[in-house]
Amino acid sequence: MQSKTVAKGVNLGNWLVLEKWMSPELFILEDGTSVEDDYQLVRALCEIVKRERYKVHRDSYITDRDFAYLAARSIDFVRIPIPFYIFGDYEPYIGCIDYLDKAFKWAERYKLKILIDLHTVPDSQNGFDNGGICGVCKFHKNPEHVEFALTVLERLAERYRDNKSLWGIEVLNEPISPELWDLVDVPKRYPAVDKAYAEGSEAVPTDFLKRFYTQAYSRIRAQADDVTVVFHDGFRIKEWVEFFKAPDFKNIVVDTHLYLMTFALKYGDGELDDHLAYIKNEMGGTVTEMSQYFPVLVGEWSIDTASRKAATTLAGKQRDDYYRKVADAHFKAWEHATAWCYWSYKCLGDEAKFDIWDMGKAIELGLLPHDLSQLQ
Amino acid sequence: MQSKTVAKGVNLGNWLVLEKWMSPELFILEDGTSVEDDYQLVRALCEIVKRERYKVHRDSYITDRDFAYLAARSIDFVRIPIPFYIFGDYEPYIGCIDYLDKAFKWAERYKLKILIDLHTVPDSQNGFDNGGICGVCKFHKNPEHVEFALTVLERLAERYRDNKSLWGIEVLNEPISPELWDLVDVPKRYPAVDKAYAEGSEAVPTDFLKRFYTQAYSRIRAQADDVTVVFHDGFRIKEWVEFFKAPDFKNIVVDTHLYLMTFALKYGDGELDDHLAYIKNEMGGTVTEMSQYFPVLVGEWSIDTASRKAATTLAGKQRDDYYRKVADAHFKAWEHATAWCYWSYKCLGDEAKFDIWDMGKAIELGLLPHDLSQLQ
Repeated sequence: MQSKTVAKGVNLGNWLVLEKWMSPELFILEDGTSVEDDYQLVRALCEIVKRERYKVHRDSYITDRDFAYLAARSIDFVRIPIPFYIFGDYEPYIGCIDYLDKAFKWAERYKLKILIDLHTVPDSQNGFDNGGICGVCKFHKNPEHVEFALTVLERLAERYRDNKSLWGIEVLNEPISPELWDLVDVPKRYPAVDKAYAEGSEAVPTDFLKRFYTQAYSRIRAQADDVTVVFHDGFRIKEWVEFFKAPDFKNIVVDTHLYLMTFALKYGDGELDDHLAYIKNEMGGTVTEMSQYFPVLVGEWSIDTASRKAATTLAGKQRDDYYRKVADAHFKAWEHATAWCYWSYKCLGDEAKFDIWDMGKAIELGLLPHDLSQLQ
Repeated sequence: MQSKTVAKGVNLGNWLVLEKWMSPELFILEDGTSVEDDYQLVRALCEIVKRERYKVHRDSYITDRDFAYLAARSIDFVRIPIPFYIFGDYEPYIGCIDYLDKAFKWAERYKLKILIDLHTVPDSQNGFDNGGICGVCKFHKNPEHVEFALTVLERLAERYRDNKSLWGIEVLNEPISPELWDLVDVPKRYPAVDKAYAEGSEAVPTDFLKRFYTQAYSRIRAQADDVTVVFHDGFRIKEWVEFFKAPDFKNIVVDTHLYLMTFALKYGDGELDDHLAYIKNEMGGTVTEMSQYFPVLVGEWSIDTASRKAATTLAGKQRDDYYRKVADAHFKAWEHATAWCYWSYKCLGDEAKFDIWDMGKAIELGLLPHDLSQLQ
């Protein structure tokens, strides 16, 4: 990953960290009702069903053949979201470190790199469904949780530091900013099941995040002196310009997630030209500007324009052309990034929305280029 | 499927009819031991685990995205092995007709055709693991079983006859011949768990098979007057030359399965040139000769040469070249067939043997052509 070209990656989302929208069937309980997040799911299922469901899913969702597929498409690396309970020491969750071990075996075979991404922490860092518990964001308020997360990072660094396929370790996915907390309206969009438990939830303060990142860096470095340490920008990328200038940060990357959902939240549906301009100027502009200060990873993006009109009216060749233009604009916008990483590789279901969120399918449908090596 | 070129297909094996060698984890019981076949599995698992295991597997193993993949590779049709209990009316098995319905929806979207293949029947027609119950082959001895199978075929014809994606219905997969029963040594290779229950097992007699095929044809035709009816040759293809001359058989296809395992059973390991000659002369010769009498489907084949030496010593480019030669010889040998169908599309596991039995992976590894349209 020292090349001068932009490294190309894809997220193995919904494998070790489940997300309901990507595989709704897994969230249906025995009585036919369903829950919204991993926290509820592991508590609502009886022990025997829980073990079986997680096992069969993990065994089949991503395997050696998927790595073969990605390598043949010139993908350079996979970003693997993992839960805080990966080591199997946090009741009532079921660990999954064996699967990450397998991924390293596959990565070695197909010469892919792996970015391990700590995607959830106890009591969550964003309140999103993908943070594991909707409407709750209190990780930063509990020093025991923080210490637990640091220990997980430490153990991951120790376990994989000598593995040639390890590209980096990402300290924490999407710790939410006050601005995004309000824009998304987290308590409304991701309502907490237990309101009392959610009490005190709030965006992750920047001063906490800086302390946490410093600690995490030092704990990882103590285990692995050359692994790339990746920090999500916490939706406040400019905060890090000075911060990472400190001489004690070496071989770090800043991850920023750039979705057009942000455009939709601010300006509504929009036309294709608006989206293309936004991708070029806002997204690409940010990446180019910030790349002067640190290597930038666009760790999540997709060709979804979040336009309801586009999703419901486009069809056939018109639809193909639309998404190819959106894709091309993104690739161009990431030209100064150190790497980009599509969200996501695979979804389970028939809905048309998956055509664009499932990179494998998008490639087969011709909405993304068949051979990504042509991009560089 | 009326084209003059050879239709190209792949089996969706191990989706609705499980096979242990293709996904060993699914056959492991809660106590860590494992069973060999579907019959044992549904009886050994507790009700709750059984339901969960089959559901999660079926939901994820084949989805819309797989059909997108196959369509992009110029695959024309999929052969879908189904179990006799597909309609959910045979305890203690769990039905799966909803999944076949889904497959038809995907096939319609991607303009693929479907060949429904009745892969198992009560008390089995071959005693293989993939027949559902190892070492047992007594289907033909029980008129109730026969009537049950006929009813299933009838219901399938009724359900899908108006569906544009239906190519055909295959009456019964691999009813074993006396010759193959001895060559494979079924009782030894697939030992029965319950020896008393297996008592009386034997190859399926030709006279039974002819009566059964006549009945099945008439029951299907009564429901669907233009669907292609496919008959497996029962490993005795020459028996059918006169049989299908009868004017009452219209729009039928004879399915023959041609694996190099047969070569290995007869002659041992062999060298590449022996295999290439066997593919050309024995396999291709049979297909060409029989195609004079009826349309021939090579409904199962693979590039596995069943050579231990090849599997254990070849590597890198040498291995790639070896399998490409084997693949090319097969494609050439099938030139007078009406269609061919690879076994299989997908396997779950890391073992190197899956590189050649998993068509998706074999394509990605370059062991099979990336775009099959180039073949015609």
